Amino acid sequence: MKNMKRNLAIDCNGIIGEKVLLKGWVERTRTHGKVAFFDLRDRSGIIQVTAHEDLAPKVASLSLQDVVEAEGEVRSRDEKYANSELETGKIEVQLKKLTVISKAAEMPFDMGGKDLNLELPTLLDFRSLTLRHQKISPIFKVQETVIDSFRKALHEKEFTEFQAPVIIPQTAEGGSEVFEVKYFGEKAFLAQSPQFYKQILVGVFERVFTVNKTLRAEPSMTTRHLTEVTTLDAEFGFIESWTEIMDMAEYVIKRMLEDVDRGCKNVLKLYNAEVPKVSNPIPRVKLREAQAIIFKRTGRNVQNEPDLAPEDEKEICKWAYEEKNSDLIFITHYPVKKRPFYTFEDPDDPGYTLSFDLLGRGTEWMTGGQRINNYETLVQKAEERGINVQKSELYLQAFKYGMPPEGGFSFGSERIVMHILGLSNIREASLFPRDMERIDQRFSVKEK
Amino acid sequence: MKNMKRNLAIDCNGIIGEKVLLKGWVERTRTHGKVAFFDLRDRSGIIQVTAHEDLAPKVASLSLQDVVEAEGEVRSRDEKYANSELETGKIEVQLKKLTVISKAAEMPFDMGGKDLNLELPTLLDFRSLTLRHQKISPIFKVQETVIDSFRKALHEKEFTEFQAPVIIPQTAEGGSEVFEVKYFGEKAFLAQSPQFYKQILVGVFERVFTVNKTLRAEPSMTTRHLTEVTTLDAEFGFIESWTEIMDMAEYVIKRMLEDVDRGCKNVLKLYNAEVPKVSNPIPRVKLREAQAIIFKRTGRNVQNEPDLAPEDEKEICKWAYEEKNSDLIFITHYPVKKRPFYTFEDPDDPGYTLSFDLLGRGTEWMTGGQRINNYETLVQKAEERGINVQKSELYLQAFKYGMPPEGGFSFGSERIVMHILGLSNIREASLFPRDMERIDQRFSVKEK
Repeated sequence: MKNMKRNLAIDCNGIIGEKVLLKGWVERTRTHGKVAFFDLRDRSGIIQVTAHEDLAPKVASLSLQDVVEAEGEVRSRDEKYANSELETGKIEVQLKKLTVISKAAEMPFDMGGKDLNLELPTLLDFRSLTLRHQKISPIFKVQETVIDSFRKALHEKEFTEFQAPVIIPQTAEGGSEVFEVKYFGEKAFLAQSPQFYKQILVGVFERVFTVNKTLRAEPSMTTRHLTEVTTLDAEFGFIESWTEIMDMAEYVIKRMLEDVDRGCKNVLKLYNAEVPKVSNPIPRVKLREAQAIIFKRTGRNVQNEPDLAPEDEKEICKWAYEEKNSDLIFITHYPVKKRPFYTFEDPDDPGYTLSFDLLGRGTEWMTGGQRINNYETLVQKAEERGINVQKSELYLQAFKYGMPPEGGFSFGSERIVMHILGLSNIREASLFPRDMERIDQRFSVKEK
Repeated sequence: MKNMKRNLAIDCNGIIGEKVLLKGWVERTRTHGKVAFFDLRDRSGIIQVTAHEDLAPKVASLSLQDVVEAEGEVRSRDEKYANSELETGKIEVQLKKLTVISKAAEMPFDMGGKDLNLELPTLLDFRSLTLRHQKISPIFKVQETVIDSFRKALHEKEFTEFQAPVIIPQTAEGGSEVFEVKYFGEKAFLAQSPQFYKQILVGVFERVFTVNKTLRAEPSMTTRHLTEVTTLDAEFGFIESWTEIMDMAEYVIKRMLEDVDRGCKNVLKLYNAEVPKVSNPIPRVKLREAQAIIFKRTGRNVQNEPDLAPEDEKEICKWAYEEKNSDLIFITHYPVKKRPFYTFEDPDDPGYTLSFDLLGRGTEWMTGGQRINNYETLVQKAEERGINVQKSELYLQAFKYGMPPEGGFSFGSERIVMHILGLSNIREASLFPRDMERIDQRFSVKEK
């Protein structure tokens, strides 16, 4: 049997009676009288291995997360023992030989249950272990699908994928929440967004997108914020109307939700989740209209506010769901002062911008809009706000040498995944979440 | 004509006689007597627009990089005027109406030629402009292809794509060339590689890959080094032999070169470049064998060196080309001391590691190898080198709780692109290259 080829768990379906060699991790063990069982996990899924006689005690002595090789024969299970929750639930492998390749230490908590009932700090302190749990790892299959779907959707629309830098000079965008880097005796900073670079590249490729780590020195410990986020950004030129930006965003979001719905059925089931309902088209209302709706529904007068507060976001999403049958809604026309200096002002509605947020299930998912493409206007708008845009020389260059009407949008992959699966904290949607108290280990713990 | 739909340059092929609306940048202009021409660039390519009578002076007054809308009719060109270098070389558009959407400032240098003959500092000082040149922008189509091909190749082999962090704690890997970040009063660092994270995730997904910005405080101004690189990393478990890692690396590299050869023909032609020749399999020789070959060919005795010097890399590549008909060669079995502490020592060849470099066209392209998967051995090897691996708690956790035999490889996309196209400086293969003297603008210039 030395040269036997490895079989994946999932491939055992349909080869009943054949000899197989499985390799994977011990996911859980149990004994029933003289029979011992273990669930073996490999990259394809989980399969039950059954041991009789001499092998039963050996299986009973396995530790969870041991890495093993198991030779045996595929058998069909008695119908009454079938497990409908496993893709291999109608079969099992009758064990003939068992080898432990790598022995695991004793589990610090119960890893064998369907759920992993841990407080967040423990979940993260043992991240390398907890990520292996069958309810945790699939979260990142959803993230992979979201990002992959974003890329595919935009490639189909002739966008070019580019690599935006992480290290940036002091720019016109920089605020207090930017991380500083020691750079050969100079000051450098970490990019909070690839905004300037994607706009520059509209001048080169016309349509661009990028997937990037964006870094923000977020000084608050909310359930919605991380210091490091995987951000999806798109930008494109030669728009005839700013509504084309929302059209493109809508196309991308719908495609992503479809791909998750189709490709991640098991994960959605695990979390008892459904992808958001999306009307066709997604409702688009001006901020002021939204505020009027909120006033009418709740009596809460927020009509002089420049933005929606969290409770307003929830209320307008509720309205969209009840009245428009949509979990998603575009809010447009934020006031000029609430948007970055490069945002395009609506010529038909002065004081308000051609910008939007996409809200989903009560919170912001995405932000976007048309940008100023005229060099003189851009410089003037920056100066009006006291922003020294001359520092961002490459950015200005792009507009100095001819730029078409353009715009784009941006969103974080973790937040989308969090809301699709209904996770209660965004940290659960990041493999290795960073916040002001933690980079892998908590700072306070590290100092002990 | 107000609601006429935009046509892309490339789509004009095959619709001779039809009215079209083009939008794009003015790439170059010229006049012949009473006729004026300009080349219009959009995301699909370049097309010639011809203007007679009243329109000729208007075209003659266009600036390069002006953004224009041009209405006209598609005509076939006289055969003697056909341009075989353009995909639209057999047609032109007879101009009927011209609108300048965005006026460009005067070019600071000649942007209209086939080549852009600039010194590197100027090329980079005007990056937002120079990237638009027809010989510069396609470099990044090659980078896009390389990265995309890497992802597709590994997805086909059931690898999971993951997002590695940029901000890391002080780890066992950190050396002097790591960037420091101010992090809420704590010290944090920028990842030089996703090495620890990809190994951790072998315990979760078995096979993983990631595309990341990696940051290194490279204190030298060579033609081969950047401080920020887009790195492609793969890692996988349950290997039966370490040679499977080279097999996988070979599969990925071959696939990438095929995809570039097929998908980037125009760019290869522009650079008079051919993708590297690859034998099947790529030659694999131990470092000591390579040194013996070099000694035999040159009389240079490097047989006691722990590594290949640049001239040795060139010589062994020459040998591979001449004797094995391959531009690529694997060098294996580097001494234990020249490799990171986690590298697997060859039990059959003590003192040497199960590791490899892939050399291409005279220089290192990729590095990889098998890693120590046993917890105790890993801790011991770290301690022998005086490395405090206990600091990297999540990393150790992965091995403490069961890890199969595993390994992987890593390479920078910029270097591969540089060597495929024969660029003389790696900065040309980065959209916005960072080095010790420059982040977008040179530091010395900025201080003026």
